[in-house]
This record gives sequence, C-alpha cells and structure tokens, in this order.
Amino acid sequence: MSKFWSKIVNELDPYVPGEQPQDQQYIKLNTNESPYPPSPAVAQALADFDCADLRRYPDPESSRLVKALAGYHGLTPPQVFVGNGSDEVLAHAFQALLQKPAPILFPDISYSFYPVYCGLYRIEFETVALDASFCIDVNDYQPGNGGIIIPNPNAPTGIALEIGAIKRLLERNRESVVIIDEAYVDFGAESATRLVTDHDNLLVVQTFSKSRNLAGLRLGAAFGHEALIEALQRIKNSFNSYPVDSLASACAIASLNDEAYFEQCRRQIIASRAHLSESLAALGFEVFPSSSNFVFVRHADRSAQSLYLDLKSAGILLRYFDKPRIDNCLRITVGSDPECDALLKALNRILS
Amino acid sequence: MSKFWSKIVNELDPYVPGEQPQDQQYIKLNTNESPYPPSPAVAQALADFDCADLRRYPDPESSRLVKALAGYHGLTPPQVFVGNGSDEVLAHAFQALLQKPAPILFPDISYSFYPVYCGLYRIEFETVALDASFCIDVNDYQPGNGGIIIPNPNAPTGIALEIGAIKRLLERNRESVVIIDEAYVDFGAESATRLVTDHDNLLVVQTFSKSRNLAGLRLGAAFGHEALIEALQRIKNSFNSYPVDSLASACAIASLNDEAYFEQCRRQIIASRAHLSESLAALGFEVFPSSSNFVFVRHADRSAQSLYLDLKSAGILLRYFDKPRIDNCLRITVGSDPECDALLKALNRILS
Repeated sequence: MSKFWSKIVNELDPYVPGEQPQDQQYIKLNTNESPYPPSPAVAQALADFDCADLRRYPDPESSRLVKALAGYHGLTPPQVFVGNGSDEVLAHAFQALLQKPAPILFPDISYSFYPVYCGLYRIEFETVALDASFCIDVNDYQPGNGGIIIPNPNAPTGIALEIGAIKRLLERNRESVVIIDEAYVDFGAESATRLVTDHDNLLVVQTFSKSRNLAGLRLGAAFGHEALIEALQRIKNSFNSYPVDSLASACAIASLNDEAYFEQCRRQIIASRAHLSESLAALGFEVFPSSSNFVFVRHADRSAQSLYLDLKSAGILLRYFDKPRIDNCLRITVGSDPECDALLKALNRILS
Repeated sequence: MSKFWSKIVNELDPYVPGEQPQDQQYIKLNTNESPYPPSPAVAQALADFDCADLRRYPDPESSRLVKALAGYHGLTPPQVFVGNGSDEVLAHAFQALLQKPAPILFPDISYSFYPVYCGLYRIEFETVALDASFCIDVNDYQPGNGGIIIPNPNAPTGIALEIGAIKRLLERNRESVVIIDEAYVDFGAESATRLVTDHDNLLVVQTFSKSRNLAGLRLGAAFGHEALIEALQRIKNSFNSYPVDSLASACAIASLNDEAYFEQCRRQIIASRAHLSESLAALGFEVFPSSSNFVFVRHADRSAQSLYLDLKSAGILLRYFDKPRIDNCLRITVGSDPECDALLKALNRILS
C-alpha cells in the first residue's frame, strides 16, 4: 500500500496462476498445458521468419490472422477479434460488454479469473450454484442480468454443456451478452461459433494455449456479432494498438493451417484421458466426466490437500483450489502417457 | 453503437496509430521504426529457441528478462516491470498510479495516447502549454495535481529536457507520481533511470520498439520504486497473468546483451538525423532541435497537409497531425541514409 496508488489498486484481489517453478523440474500436470510440442509447421514458420521484419510494428489489425481464423470457423473478419492471450481478450470483454447496471452471472465453481476482472472493472456479479454433481443448469440463469459468462467445458470441473442448452440460454437472455469461454472446447465439447451468425448477443472466446500447444505464444480470439467485436476493438485501440506481435501471428497462422497435427494431438489427449480416468477410478477416485484436457477428481479417503502435497514432494504438480465446495478436489492435466503413468504409480504408492 | 456495449465504449475516442499499409510498398518515415534490423544476437536467439517450449506458459514474472533489465540499468528486480509493449505498460500505469481525485498534467503537444488512456480509465486531465518554441518549462507543472506524465524527449517535437529539470520537477511534486516516458531517450537525452532509487515518486517507461529495432516484438518496461512497481504488478495480475511471451523474452534478453550493436545503430541514426536536419533547413524548413529518431519540421511556404499528401503520392509516408498548434508541422522518422535521400529528392522536386 502506498499513497501513490490509485484507489482501485488497494481493492484488487489479483488472480494467482498455477505454479510455474523456474528452478526445479516437475512433472507439470497443474496448468493444463499440452504435453506435445506445437505443429512442425510452427517450427517451420519460426525458421522462415525474417528477423529483420521485427524492426516494424505488426499490423495493428492482425488482418492475416483474423482472416485465417474467420475462414477456419466459417465467419467473416468483422466477426473476429484477436488478443495477447484469451485472458486479455476476456479482460477487454468484461470492460466492453459486461460493465452494466445489473449484476452479471457466472457459475459458483468456474474460472477464478472472472471475479478478478469484476474487481478490476468494478462490475457487480452473482454466482449461480452448480448442482450437486457439478453440472450447470442453464435454467438457473434468470433474465434481467447484466450479462452471463460460462466456460464450456467448465473449469475446473471439465464438464461440458450440450449446444442445445447454450442455444436455450442465448434465446432466454436476448437482452444480455452471453460469453461462452471455450478454452477447452476442442477436447470434447461442441463449439458455439456456429451460433454466432444467428445470435447477436453471443461472444465465443477461444485460445491457442491448450489444443494448439501454444501457451508460450500468448494468443486468444473472440468470435461474435460485428457490434460486439467493434466494442472489443474500441477498448483495444484505447489500450494497446498492437497487442499481437509479428512472431505470434506467423506461428498462429501456421498452426491453423496444420489441421492433421491438431487432430492427432486432440485425439491423443482424449485417448489418454480415458485411460487416466479409468485408472484413477480404480484407485478409489471419483472422476467427473471430462470433456477437456484435464480431469477433476476427489478421493473418498484422502484429503485433496494432503495428496497435492505428497505428490509435490514426489515431483508431480497438480492444481489444488482452497475454495468452498472444491477444497477436496484435485485438477489433473492430461499429460503424455508416461507422465500419466508416473502419476498413477506415485498415487499407487501414496494411497497404499 | 449497440445496446450490448458498456457505457465506457460509447465514451471512448480510440488512439489512431500511424498508417501501416499492408498492400503497398512505401518508404515508411511515419511511425518512428528503426531502419535497421534487430541485433544479430536476436536472430541467433530465435534460431536457438526450442519451439517445443511454446507448449508451456511463459514465466508469469518474466524473471530472467526483469533481472537482465535490472542489471542493465543498475537497479534491482523489484524496481522493474515488463509488459506487452510500452503502450500496455503506460495503460497499466495510468490505471494504477494516475486515477486520482485531482486532474493529472501533461503537455498540450505530446503523445496522443495520453488523453485516450484518460478516457479509458475516466481520469481528469489538464494540459500544460509548451512555450512558443515547443519547449517544456517544468515550472509550469504546479503541485496539487493528480500526477504528471511527460515524454523525454517529447513527441512529436523531439525536444529533450535536461535531467536537472526532471529532478526539479520530481522534487517540487513529491506528493504526485511523475512518469517520464522515455520511448526515444536513447537518441540523445539522458535517462532518468538513475534518479529512480532516490525518488519514490518517479516511474520511467521505456520500449524495445525504437532504439532496439524491435517494434514487432511488443516489449516495454517500467522502472521505479518498489511500491510503484507493485501497483503495476497488481493491475497486471488482475488483467493477464502472462503478458510477455516466451519468444519476446528470449529476443529481448539477446538484444540487451549486444551493447555494441545497440551503440552502432543509435550513433548511425544520430548522424543521419544531423544530415537530414541540415538538408531540410536548406530546403526552407524550420527544424526543431531533435534528440530522438525523428525530426519535427514546418515549412514557411507550403502547408504540412499538402506536403504530406504530395509525398504520399510519391510513395513516402510521413506523420501529419491535424491538431491545434501543430497542424502545419510534419514528423519525419530518421530512416536509412538512402531513405532520407529519397525524401530529400522528392521534396526538392515538390518544392521547386
């Protein structure tokens, strides 16, 4: 605290990302990174990149990348926005579309950055409780709200909503913006991008961090009606004219152009998830049905916190949330098969 | 305008960066980019970068880069902040340190992003007029303000303040944060980073875009008292946990380690600026004394707008600002010597 701080700085309760130890080598199953490298096309794009071009500012509109994303999703460029990671895109969306007189709604168990954005932009919010099996019932989201944001699949539960439920949510809340945060959609849920053209209140947010194995690149995108995208552009152009650097654009376009590799990684993670889920169940864990690149589990006999600490000592990092309702659960990123096997072996030892 | 927009979106008057034509080849002397490629060490860092690392999130604290910058400037890591371009760093600084009950102060002719940030964060401001020769008099900045931001050298005038004047400004305004925006400092002004340790109200902002030839990388930094840096960290951690991507960190560190190349480019631009300034004066331009990588000029007989348009037709882009007091001036980036010669040749033709 300092006399020089703006009032808002004292009010903030910043987001705490999963541990990123810089010193020690862990088996990192705590931040939902991919166990696989980016597409070889990304390495090629980096090798082909003319370093001399870095002396120039990037295209402030990221036109080539926006066009590539529009083509990929069957949309037009004015329906597409890109930013420096989906966290930046979400931040702009909260400021541009969710700063409303009525409170916004999101699930009580969800991405823990949402209440942080509300603090940053002084947005009132109400949380809507998941049911006992950690599922979202869209009927619980009552009109009259200032906006709705729901991850699909939800995090940290991994449980997906059917596209029909999202459609009902959009149609019941025609006066509110509904943001579907699809960070994990490629691992088993259906994307709402195909609803964008017919629903002027829908914004879909995606990331290159998970299913495109590019967390280190910082690239996120939003898809929505032109008027919603224009609101994001106006915020972006009042914040940072050039949020997406030239290297990130080149790598992202290369990734989008290699559909075969994308499919291969996606399918491998889905297969590893099935094996990991069965093995964890056999060890006495309750495993929630995951449509993402992580599984959410709890054990009948052992506290999540003690398991988290025992595994950390064994060199394996999981994500533990000290929060109501989920403080006895663990979120486990689906790693490579050898990483999953190392986890299962360590758990076998710890639990026996 | 849309019913879905937050109120702030309607109020914004976004920043308009210099033209970045994607279609046509221009001699671009309009956005103060370097005519030289980044250090060969940057190309080497890119070649050495293991693309597989992109699957991981970057270090959220950018510890290696922060340590390198601290060492470079003789500061400690808690006195250093990094972000996705100095525009992002400035945005966070406005929100973290300048959102105060009293209006903030900046020059009437200055970086045109400042009033945009004030709009984004609803900050009251008053501008302080430059004198008739476009110089800043620090005695005009009266205590009782909510903060002060001054570019040194100023943009778009290119005129620098002496370090003694900045010290007087800091000492006279001990209750306000004073931000010195040093985007262009390496081309002829003295950096205030050496005042950081003794002045708890000073924040210095720098960029890798200009003197490090890395505009395409998006990297900016701030230097200040630990409490000021903590305020920026709190905003950053409530906005985007990982603003600096892994490639940008690696390239920036490589650039910092190649002091000889940095000196060589800097000196070349200073030499080219001297030649360009003399030649423009010989063509009838008034040339303001520049300490940056651009010159600010006006012509006795020809309007700036007509010269801007004639040169654009001739394939040369300059920056023209349709703003009070400077609407008869042009800002010309110091390009390579062949680029400057092409400009002088075109002007010779247009003016004769």
